[in-house]
Amino acid sequence: MKIAILGTGAVGRTLAAGLATAGHEVTVGTRDVAVTLSRTAADPMGNPTFTDWRRQHHDIAVESLGEAAAGAQLVVNALSGAGALSGLEAAGEKNLAGKVLIDVANPLDFSRGMPPFLTVSNTDSLGEQIQRRFPGTRVVKTLNTITAGLMVDPAGLAAAGHTVFVSGDDATAKAQVAALLESLGWSDIIDLGDITTARGTEMYVALWARLMGALGTPAFSIKVVR
Amino acid sequence: MKIAILGTGAVGRTLAAGLATAGHEVTVGTRDVAVTLSRTAADPMGNPTFTDWRRQHHDIAVESLGEAAAGAQLVVNALSGAGALSGLEAAGEKNLAGKVLIDVANPLDFSRGMPPFLTVSNTDSLGEQIQRRFPGTRVVKTLNTITAGLMVDPAGLAAAGHTVFVSGDDATAKAQVAALLESLGWSDIIDLGDITTARGTEMYVALWARLMGALGTPAFSIKVVR
Repeated sequence: MKIAILGTGAVGRTLAAGLATAGHEVTVGTRDVAVTLSRTAADPMGNPTFTDWRRQHHDIAVESLGEAAAGAQLVVNALSGAGALSGLEAAGEKNLAGKVLIDVANPLDFSRGMPPFLTVSNTDSLGEQIQRRFPGTRVVKTLNTITAGLMVDPAGLAAAGHTVFVSGDDATAKAQVAALLESLGWSDIIDLGDITTARGTEMYVALWARLMGALGTPAFSIKVVR
Repeated sequence: MKIAILGTGAVGRTLAAGLATAGHEVTVGTRDVAVTLSRTAADPMGNPTFTDWRRQHHDIAVESLGEAAAGAQLVVNALSGAGALSGLEAAGEKNLAGKVLIDVANPLDFSRGMPPFLTVSNTDSLGEQIQRRFPGTRVVKTLNTITAGLMVDPAGLAAAGHTVFVSGDDATAKAQVAALLESLGWSDIIDLGDITTARGTEMYVALWARLMGALGTPAFSIKVVR
């Protein structure tokens, strides 16, 4: 499948590499291709430069947000929570129309340090904001409860039987996303319901952040035991 | 141990019965003993009358909130989220002073139906509100991520290896609560940190509520896989 990953941070890179390894034709979308490709310093999170990462991933194209979205059958929002809506605006409503948009972002505010606060919660969610803004796009919220490395490699945890959630208004879109998740190794996929259920997984990130603090690693996940 | 359970709803009753079965001397505290004992109708949730429940639990005393708290070594807040602070006021600051208070309540607003909203989240939590109001009491938030029946019987789930969390400022109090949890059958107990980490488990309830909707039962829990 032709997949556009919007966002060049750790999440976008990991998803791009994982989906390319799984055999998909992957394009990474970024606001300014020239700027992204000219970065020579590690980012604030300590990740290597995009150029260094790209040397190991020649098969992954880099385009503008709009070009990447226009050429893809399926689009993944891996932008930061704060940059998601403006980034999707830049990608262009017509380039997203009719497509499935997998939203893995969380509306996090790190400006006061760790753990982050949520910029929207309880009565709304980023997933809903995106769905409202792009009514012609079929938004499926998923994978936002899991650190990037495990998104595309759930077996990376020794006890691999953990759970991933999907939220969205379109049943066909959710089925398509579930099939993609299964192809990555996910087996316990819970359909929470419509896009408002994204509030549940986004608010869970408040627990996730405390667990990361307590466990000293982001390499964990949850299994719904029933 | 002499334990006071504040609250006579489904959570209070289940905790009282479970802790009495485990050998503790349990008193249930209620705002007005005469009113509680005179109720002859099922509650809005369909639970049997308190009087009917009590016929099967003669060993459990029923007292006012203040009497129950005064006579106990350890107090459990099993009041509704909306009634917790006023109920604890009625129990009396001096009756709670120096004691461990286990807070299992969630700040839920059911006035707009299911799933509920949180009345406080993100920048504060009910656990913190209680700790601030009763600085001489050692508040430990726990068990609020699990339906009542599983709180005192974690083995009630076939795959019993699920996780319970503790949050609190006092390490000794958390160790005492962890020992009590172990006596009930809990083995995977994660100390999230100080009482501010109660935000994590209270906000998780937003996911819990959607999971209950998707699974059609409250009889589930989560295992932190790492």
